Amino acid sequence: MTEFISSPENKLIKEVASLKQKKYRDSLGMFVAEGVRLVEECINAGWPVEVCIYTENAAAKNRTHSLIEKITNMNCKMVVVPENIYNKISDTDQPQGIMVILEKRPSTIDTMVSGINKQPLLIILDGIQDPGNVGTIIRTADAAGCTGVIVLKGSADIYAGKTVRATMGSLFHLPITEALSPSELLPVLKEAGIKVMATGLQKSFSYYQADFNNPVAIVLGNEGQGVSAELLKAADSCLTIPLVGQAESLNVAVAAGIILYEAIRQRSTCNL
Amino acid sequence: MTEFISSPENKLIKEVASLKQKKYRDSLGMFVAEGVRLVEECINAGWPVEVCIYTENAAAKNRTHSLIEKITNMNCKMVVVPENIYNKISDTDQPQGIMVILEKRPSTIDTMVSGINKQPLLIILDGIQDPGNVGTIIRTADAAGCTGVIVLKGSADIYAGKTVRATMGSLFHLPITEALSPSELLPVLKEAGIKVMATGLQKSFSYYQADFNNPVAIVLGNEGQGVSAELLKAADSCLTIPLVGQAESLNVAVAAGIILYEAIRQRSTCNL
Repeated sequence: MTEFISSPENKLIKEVASLKQKKYRDSLGMFVAEGVRLVEECINAGWPVEVCIYTENAAAKNRTHSLIEKITNMNCKMVVVPENIYNKISDTDQPQGIMVILEKRPSTIDTMVSGINKQPLLIILDGIQDPGNVGTIIRTADAAGCTGVIVLKGSADIYAGKTVRATMGSLFHLPITEALSPSELLPVLKEAGIKVMATGLQKSFSYYQADFNNPVAIVLGNEGQGVSAELLKAADSCLTIPLVGQAESLNVAVAAGIILYEAIRQRSTCNL
Repeated sequence: MTEFISSPENKLIKEVASLKQKKYRDSLGMFVAEGVRLVEECINAGWPVEVCIYTENAAAKNRTHSLIEKITNMNCKMVVVPENIYNKISDTDQPQGIMVILEKRPSTIDTMVSGINKQPLLIILDGIQDPGNVGTIIRTADAAGCTGVIVLKGSADIYAGKTVRATMGSLFHLPITEALSPSELLPVLKEAGIKVMATGLQKSFSYYQADFNNPVAIVLGNEGQGVSAELLKAADSCLTIPLVGQAESLNVAVAAGIILYEAIRQRSTCNL
């Protein structure tokens, strides 16, 4: 049944607005996916919806209308709000008038490395600060067919609005662990026979000289500081992307794409 | 000589504030580079500074202080403003208290393709809308040692604050043409023997099956629509990046990095 809420003091509305902040996402275990495209991706991926909030204006549009019909049939809570309430709880500059409230469902590292029926290709985010970068790396990892993304403590929250939007839905496709510490992660990778490859500007060998025809986890570091000393020390090897021109570094999401696709190229040259 | 300006009604201050808008950047032929790192890159690249504006707080910091000394010796106009005026003209969320006003200096396509003493590797931006994407592609093109970036009409302004910041200084390193039309560009490329490679999701061949050991120009298209029909038709070939997982597409700056670095890999396998 659809409920109409027009008071900004309503408990649900205040709770949804609070999800813009990490501490409330953490304590409630919930997050928001917003915009037609993202909500579609969520539904298509079968991620269960707790609440769907939309405006009448949005529901008047064909694409949103059929989306709302689909969600209504899923028996979750449906809420219609006036524009001013929607804009208040929205985390975007140009609200599209539809959002879903979802339960966080992080994977565990154990399930991520066990029972994989293909060659593991993991990405480890080691202190990446920008939510746009984190989201774009998740999207790129999905495109490249990675087996999962491991987000270490100190990286941007994967459930922040900007991160979720930048994943373009890939958050719903890919196993992702969050807030792990290196000491929780490294023994599991070792046990599973997955080689850790750090990346950086250090003198090391060029990424295309690396052999990706093995189970590997590629570590991407903080935008300014790079991979942490702890991970650099623990890594089996360290890759660099040669800088041919005058730029001092590459954007970390671009770097992720370059290395992941070299892995794909090496693994696919027989069958593509 | 250093001037102190405290009035928001001052003509220079109003002019600088107006440079946040494209129409004033176009009519005045000027743009702004802001932040310590970016101003350093500008100075190191020898780009002439028209005006340097800073706050006393910024000048009290070591790194900014030596930068200001360097610029003062360049005989450009130096202006000190109070924080409130600086924040008013700044285009960033976290103003660092130093900016330079610069003259636009776009390259021409003719100089870009003639007299190149290395194998041309050009990037063509065909309607890319997001300033962050345009800036990140320029940074990536610089890192990959591209000979230049060609920005077609309908792309985001390379002189917008967000674009300039995303280039991380590469705007000052690389020849860039702006606001060209395909009919101005294509005959020049043909005459110079540069093959045009469009990119897209169309059925086409995988980018790593392409031969980059030739003079090539790689076309990157709009974030939603891809490469325009005109460029697709004119292209000598069309490349795609295989999507192995469930993502529907890649971020265009990530795609640029993947293709450019495949070109670099192919061109360097002998000498790296």
